[in-house]
Order: sequence, then structure tokens, then C-alpha cells
Amino acid sequence: MKIPRISMLTLGVADLKRAAKFYESVLKTPLNLTYEGVVFIELPGTWLALYPLENLAGDISAQIHPSKEGFSGITLAHNGRSRDEVLAVIERARSAGARIVKEPRETSWGGFGGYFSDLDGYHWEVAWGPMFDFTEKGELKFKDKT
Amino acid sequence: MKIPRISMLTLGVADLKRAAKFYESVLKTPLNLTYEGVVFIELPGTWLALYPLENLAGDISAQIHPSKEGFSGITLAHNGRSRDEVLAVIERARSAGARIVKEPRETSWGGFGGYFSDLDGYHWEVAWGPMFDFTEKGELKFKDKT
Repeated sequence: MKIPRISMLTLGVADLKRAAKFYESVLKTPLNLTYEGVVFIELPGTWLALYPLENLAGDISAQIHPSKEGFSGITLAHNGRSRDEVLAVIERARSAGARIVKEPRETSWGGFGGYFSDLDGYHWEVAWGPMFDFTEKGELKFKDKT
Repeated sequence: MKIPRISMLTLGVADLKRAAKFYESVLKTPLNLTYEGVVFIELPGTWLALYPLENLAGDISAQIHPSKEGFSGITLAHNGRSRDEVLAVIERARSAGARIVKEPRETSWGGFGGYFSDLDGYHWEVAWGPMFDFTEKGELKFKDKT
């Protein structure tokens, strides 16, 4: 409890192998397949995990129906260091089979970004913003903060 | 692109003020309210952001309907350092108005954990596992890795 944080984010997926291949292409990060039936992607900060949707729902409660209709209500974001990085990540996602829901463009908040949805329809924003900077570790920080 | 990571996770919420108060209680982390209409919680690793659900859906695309029926398909996780920490976080969430969907218990994978759902129905797993350790920064790592 010393360091409140999101340790891991788990996406419930329809096809574990396909989803793993997709994220390996997009993130260019090795997958940890040590544990059967779940894929861990040990990103810095917060890990990403992939798990069959039915199993994820069942792990929470038998009352949770493993159907995922419509918008999840959640977006994941990758903040880039430049407009060019945003374009490059979006192209990488497109090549891996993502649907580009919003092609990168100038945003209303003075940044530049777009959205892709992954093979299961989860939305990622890829954006650059003039108010954002990065710590040495690569975490986001606001420019006016030290 | 040097450091692939989830920079931020945004939850689309029904009532921004209520959601902000809830997460302030649960995470005990100051909220950044500098930007109107959005709440940033600058957690180490990956930030959490709260944004009205309709605005979030609209930012992605006019085709996305801002209705969030059923299971989002996504779980957030906080990994604790002990069973006691898991119990403490769950109690903190309960006090803040979360619904405890699964009371903490021994898990099938040899750990100990439970789930709560926040005011908008997003699911958090709070768990301790014998295979998990933490970096100096507080990130997860596997015990058998250096």
C-alpha cells in the first residue's frame, strides 16, 4: 500500500494466441508464457496481461456474463514523444491488424493523436501533447512540474 | 517508442466528482484537477484518468455509443505485498463505497485476493501472489527473475 498503483491491466480476449501475437508486434516486447493460459507482458510501470474473456469473467464472479457488448468504457493510452512517434505507433498497430478508429490528427486540447482498436475491440489512444513530459523511467509527467 | 508502455488508463465515468472522490479515498493520492473536465491521478508507472463516459466515447468516434452495458472485459489490478495488505485495500475500497464482488480468499493459483467494483462498475483485483516480487520502484516482477 506504500505505493498505490495499477500493477497490472488484464484484457479479456477471445483468442489468446492471436491477441498475444498482436501485442508482441505492436509493443515489440517479449511475452512471458511461463504460466499456462495467461500471457504476461512485463511493461515498465504497469504490466499488461491477456487472459481468455470467459476465464476473466469467471474469476471475478459467476454472476459476471462474459459477453462484451459495445464500448468497454476504458481507454488505454500510449503517450509519444513526438507527432512522428504517434504516426509510427499507429502504423505499427495497423500492420498488426488493428482497426484505426481515428486517424492521427491535431486534437482539441492542443495535442496530436489517434485511436486504434485491438483485435478484441479495446481502444488505445496514441497521442503526443505539448503539456506532457517524461521522467527518466519513461513515466508521464506534466511539463510545468519538477 | 523507446519504452513501450501504457502511459495512462482512462475510465469513462458517470459522475466525475463522485468518481474523483472515490479514487482519492481508495488510492490516497492527490488528484490533479488542473485541466477542466478531466481528473488525472499521477500514479507511478501508469496514470489513471477519469473522464465523463460520453466525452470519452465521443473523443474516439461518433460511432461509439457511450453506453456501457455489462462487463467491460478489462480488470485493473493492485498487487499487494502481503495478505494483510490485500485485506486493508479491500476494506479501504469498501469504506469508499465500492462493491466487494469477491471477498478476499485463497486463489486457485496459490495466491490470495478478491475483487471490488468501483462506482461505475469497473473491476479491480486486489491480490498477493507468492510468485510476485517488486522492483525498487514498486513495479511487479517475478520472483525467479533478476
